[in-house]
Amino acid sequence: MDTRAIGIWDSGLGGLTVVRAVAERLPGERLVYFGDSARVPYGTKSAQTVRRFARQNSEFLLTKGLKLMVVACNTASALALEELQELLDIPVIGVIEPGARAAAAATRTGIVGVIGTPGTIQSGAYNAALRECKGGLSVVSRECPLFVPLAEEGWLMHPATRLTAEEYLNPVKQAGVDTLVLGCTHYPVLRPLIGEVMGQDVRLVDSAEETAREVEARLDKLNLKSADESAAELECYVSDMPSRFRQAGELFLGRRIENVALVEYDKAKENPWQ
Amino acid sequence: MDTRAIGIWDSGLGGLTVVRAVAERLPGERLVYFGDSARVPYGTKSAQTVRRFARQNSEFLLTKGLKLMVVACNTASALALEELQELLDIPVIGVIEPGARAAAAATRTGIVGVIGTPGTIQSGAYNAALRECKGGLSVVSRECPLFVPLAEEGWLMHPATRLTAEEYLNPVKQAGVDTLVLGCTHYPVLRPLIGEVMGQDVRLVDSAEETAREVEARLDKLNLKSADESAAELECYVSDMPSRFRQAGELFLGRRIENVALVEYDKAKENPWQ
Repeated sequence: MDTRAIGIWDSGLGGLTVVRAVAERLPGERLVYFGDSARVPYGTKSAQTVRRFARQNSEFLLTKGLKLMVVACNTASALALEELQELLDIPVIGVIEPGARAAAAATRTGIVGVIGTPGTIQSGAYNAALRECKGGLSVVSRECPLFVPLAEEGWLMHPATRLTAEEYLNPVKQAGVDTLVLGCTHYPVLRPLIGEVMGQDVRLVDSAEETAREVEARLDKLNLKSADESAAELECYVSDMPSRFRQAGELFLGRRIENVALVEYDKAKENPWQ
Repeated sequence: MDTRAIGIWDSGLGGLTVVRAVAERLPGERLVYFGDSARVPYGTKSAQTVRRFARQNSEFLLTKGLKLMVVACNTASALALEELQELLDIPVIGVIEPGARAAAAATRTGIVGVIGTPGTIQSGAYNAALRECKGGLSVVSRECPLFVPLAEEGWLMHPATRLTAEEYLNPVKQAGVDTLVLGCTHYPVLRPLIGEVMGQDVRLVDSAEETAREVEARLDKLNLKSADESAAELECYVSDMPSRFRQAGELFLGRRIENVALVEYDKAKENPWQ
């Protein structure tokens, strides 16, 4: 039994959907979450910058004593996962490969849709992961940059969100997909609307559940599991606005968040030229 | 004659509308611009974080040898201007006070609308500046967090943008404003649509022109002007994606941008725990 924590991070709040799934599946584990709310969003930024942020976030969480780390951000999983796996000496799990595996298993027609941020879609990471899971799949992908701000505005069923969803999703639907990967941790809150636009014949896949399954499998394999439910807890850190995180985070986590602290990476460099 | 540069910064691209106005009014001045594209947007972040970013951006630009600095970001002007004016020993000009002055001069009914990011509106900076310009003004303000991502998506006349604008602006219109301050440097690109929703009787004010006027007045007063048009140039720095800045920036600047370099503040701390 290994009581070190599992570290989970995202650019903001969305990764809490992964925290929720991991906590449900592994109630004996101690979880430490970091949300980079001072630099959110990542999805419209360059690979170089996302990789730099990913190294910094990982190194912060490592100071908490981890046995395994989850990159619960699709953009960072797409752009930085391999580098982190090389740099760190603990297992690092992303959200792309689990989501792709679930979608490859679900599709009947072999035509799979993927929606995500510009960073995720442009990386081609889902295409590669889907084709690795199952040869011969046809993948239709679409950047949806407005979904994150619309979700954060809370316009989950607003007419403007519906128009946006129709514009983004109609070409994906017309391509005949039977499975759609929600390739961004923010999108599950838009699931009802996305489901209406895609129609009931299209199966929606989000990576949270599948990622939690992967975390469990990896801990089992490496004999790193903890079952000490009395010690299980969730400790959260953010780089901005802990009170907003506490409130809005409940939408993603499904329960109250008690324990949120502010961290400022660049504090020591506040006056770098003085 | 003082040939040191004027420094202008924003969270991203929008401040180029101010660069444009300053360059037109003061063709003999050397301009240095910084856009914090790695951490954009500022409008949904806390005062504490925006102030930290503002100090860092200012200190970077100061290394370029400035005689005057313009904070061409409404959110940072609202939250960090006073602190910068205290910290720095050159004049620092924001965009709020010039915009407020133009609106106070324009209104006939005395009812002025202000739209901006959550950070700008919640700060109350426009209310204070407007009332300082002209006692007895009535101010109606509204946060419009989706306008920045809609403008960046290029959906300048899209039906989803129109629905969003109607939802944000109808209450402002119904309050009987005759003047509306576009209190965010991104909003001028949405001006045609905002104008349609508000109706032709409402005058739209953006701060760029008025800010350039203030820059000129301050240089005149302090005898800091340069008239060496042969030396005039624009030097741009961004914290992410210089090529995107070069392309998209033309929309805001109205001409080609030749000279863009990438700067990474936190580079030295890439591996802070090693």
